[in-house]
Parts: sequence; C-alpha cells; structure tokens
Amino acid sequence: MKRPKILVTNDDGIVAPGIKVLVEIVKKIGDVVVVAPDKPQSGQGHAITLESPLRLKKVELFEGVESYECSGTPVDCVKLAKSVILKEDNIDLCVSGINHGSNASINIIYSGTMSAAMEASLEGINSIGFSFLDFSFKADFTNATPYIESIIRSVLDKKTLPSRLINVNIPKGDIAGIKVCRQAKGVWVEEFKESIDPRGEPYYWMTGKFDYQDSKNDNDLKALEAGYISVVPSHHDLTHYSSIDALKYLETSEHE
Amino acid sequence: MKRPKILVTNDDGIVAPGIKVLVEIVKKIGDVVVVAPDKPQSGQGHAITLESPLRLKKVELFEGVESYECSGTPVDCVKLAKSVILKEDNIDLCVSGINHGSNASINIIYSGTMSAAMEASLEGINSIGFSFLDFSFKADFTNATPYIESIIRSVLDKKTLPSRLINVNIPKGDIAGIKVCRQAKGVWVEEFKESIDPRGEPYYWMTGKFDYQDSKNDNDLKALEAGYISVVPSHHDLTHYSSIDALKYLETSEHE
Repeated sequence: MKRPKILVTNDDGIVAPGIKVLVEIVKKIGDVVVVAPDKPQSGQGHAITLESPLRLKKVELFEGVESYECSGTPVDCVKLAKSVILKEDNIDLCVSGINHGSNASINIIYSGTMSAAMEASLEGINSIGFSFLDFSFKADFTNATPYIESIIRSVLDKKTLPSRLINVNIPKGDIAGIKVCRQAKGVWVEEFKESIDPRGEPYYWMTGKFDYQDSKNDNDLKALEAGYISVVPSHHDLTHYSSIDALKYLETSEHE
Repeated sequence: MKRPKILVTNDDGIVAPGIKVLVEIVKKIGDVVVVAPDKPQSGQGHAITLESPLRLKKVELFEGVESYECSGTPVDCVKLAKSVILKEDNIDLCVSGINHGSNASINIIYSGTMSAAMEASLEGINSIGFSFLDFSFKADFTNATPYIESIIRSVLDKKTLPSRLINVNIPKGDIAGIKVCRQAKGVWVEEFKESIDPRGEPYYWMTGKFDYQDSKNDNDLKALEAGYISVVPSHHDLTHYSSIDALKYLETSEHE
C-alpha cells in the first residue's frame, strides 16, 4: 500500500518544539514534507504576502524528512508547498501545529496554525490543526501524542473529512477522551498597555482577556475544561445563511 | 436625535482614495472617527500584532473628522479604536473600505478590509465592509456613492444586522440594484513567479488566478457579474455544523 503524502506546517516557526513532535508522529505514518515559517508567526491569521518576494530554504532539521523554512506567513507556506515544492504530487493530508497555546473558540480566526490548515482545505486537501493548551516551549506532549496519532490515522483511513478541516485542541495533563463539538462563543476584550518610548512618544502593546459568551455546554471550551480533546469541524464559508432573508430589505434601496 | 457614532477603517491605508470617499459619505450621516493603517495592508486577513508595539498618530486628513493613522494591521486599528480612542463611547456602526478591489467569494478570508469589519462585529458593533471592483487608485466611485449611503442609512435605521456583519461588493460602471446572497465557492489557484536575486538566490512572488467552483447562481460573484451590488451577511463562527455528527467516529479513538 502506498504511504500517504503528508504536509506539515505551523505558525510558531520551524524550530518550535511542537512541530518536532508532530513530525515524529507523522513520520511513522507517511511520507512527510515540512514547509514552515522561519520565525514565529502567531496571530498572523489568514495573512498572505503580496508586496514582497518570498524565500524558501531547504533545511536539515528533521532526520529523513524533506524540510523547508519559508520567509512568509503560515498561509504562504502552504501555497508554496503546493505550487512550488510538491506541484503535481497529491497531498493526502496537511497537519498544522502542534501550536503552543489554544486555538479554541474565537482564537481560530487569529491563528496562523488554523489559517494554514484552512488554506490547505481550500485547495481540496484534508487538513487538521493541532493545538496544545500550554504556551511553554518546554511543554510536555507525552499524553497528547497517542491521541494525535490516532486522530491522524482515523482521518487517513476514512479518506474524507466532510468539512475538509478540523480544529483539534488538546488539554494539558490527563486526557479524558475526545469530544466532537462546535466553536464556543467568546471574544477577546482588548486592553492595551500604554508606555512612553525613550524619545517621549507613546506606544501601545496589545494584551487582553477572554470573555466567554456562550450559554450552552456543547462547545470546545467546555470540552477542554472537562479534560477532553476538542474536535471542531470547520470551514471557510463565512455566509450567515439564516440572515439572507432578513436582509432583503436592503434590496429595495435602489437608485434609478 | 443623537447622531450615530461611526468608526471608519480600511486596509489600503489612510491615504487611499476609497477611504476618502467613504468618509465623505458618513460625515453627512453621523459623528465620524477614522483609525486606519499608515501603509497598505492588503491581504493581511485577521492578523494582529503581538510581538511589537503599536503606534497611533493623530492626523489632519479629513476636514472636521477626528483621524488617526496606526502602525498596525486593520484588525489592530479596530482594537485600538475601541480600547484606546473611543473607550466608553458607543460605536453605532463600523464601516471598512472602500476597498480597491473585490472581496467577494473566498477573498473575504484574505481581506484586511473584511477582517477589520469582522473584528468590530465580534465586539458587538454592526459592521459593513465595502469593496469596489476596480483596483485603480483613480477609480470612479460616482455610481457607487448613493448606494453606499443608502445601505448605511438602512442599517442604521433598522439598528440591527442579524449577523452583525455584511460584505458589500460593488461593480464598476452601471449598477442594476442590490442582491442579498451567499459567498460564492471558489479558490485562488496559486502560481509563483520564480526569479533570481542579484546574489544568485531564488525568490518567489505570489500571483495566481481565481478558480470559480460554484454550481449555482445565488452567490455574490454571479450578482456582480449581472451588474448588481452583492450583500453577503457574514459571521465568525467557522463551525461546519453538518459535519459534527459525521465526525463522531473520532470520539471512539480513546486511549485508556
């Protein structure tokens, strides 16, 4: 049986511990190519690089695995992997991460990890973003590893993800199991720390706290709180279908 | 009657012609504050600035309108407007644009214009992103202007947008009317132009063509093609609800 071709990327940068753990897992399963940012790209969302050229450099970071660092965003990495490196090669799966920190709830829209996976899903590739609820680069992934392997193998066996994209978040410590659920409602309430630079000019540094706004429990944050891995099927159609009829009043505002 | 407070931003930068047209329209309707990037930020998606400080500078660009240029992304602009500039002031509406170029179909996820509007919608503010299907900074917005004004007035009158966010795209030339519809299915098929720099190293510049993948006509691209303004109610819940049950097979992959 032909081994699946697996593309690996992330947003913490190619030297982050999380991507190393992920590469070790997928090496056992398929033929792996890594294309990841040459520096941290957290919070890059679905940014792409239009106004400047991109660089790709072959690196020897993962034993026996073809690997490239890229000067662009996580989404750029996926586009270059598909168009320049793998070209006609069929990619059976794209995995992104393991992110250091949560991409549950609204974090998905800011996340370079998830945007990279979404870009691959757009291009017709089944994709999984993995995130671990520990920001530390010394995070211990031991408990997470067998679950990650099992999710990847399940998706490859089924050969299909109905939405082509899943957002997997993994709690620290003991794991109770896996819950398939929806994205929790919530928002970052931004606060900025204002300071004055040595020339007397003000500057602002983003901080903020998370405001949970969900009234029900069938969501990713509640699953994580209960010690479960959350799996949220996700997609890129941002249409709010139930509003289409309610907005028909705008159609009357015509100017002859 | 109290005049509505309107926040204006964009992604082409505060000196782009599109934002000037938008400011002229909303000045007639409400009290306006502009917070927009100090340089072009197209394709920035939902990127935020975490690793460096942000600058805000008061500028005199629009007569009688409080205006700031910001060193960050479009989403940073909205966050700073809300947290640092307007604070406790209620924002009745956020308008983003007028973007030079289409944000219909999948462009919404790469667009700084739409991400800024989405960020405001996340914070509970009714938001509209406007985009005009002409990349030129010499674009003629004459036909578009009365429609933009009428959409803004309608949304302010109704005081509610069921999804809090709409994506408005406007064709060049004659306008047939307004259609409320869904995001068309499609994807950018990326190609990269490879060149060699003066030191002999390769670099890649993103290009690409759009691949229309929709089998039906009730979408924004078809509306635009027929000369209509497209209005797509949009939101930030990326859950693919219909897949939740189909993915329950993953819940069985537990490791005791």
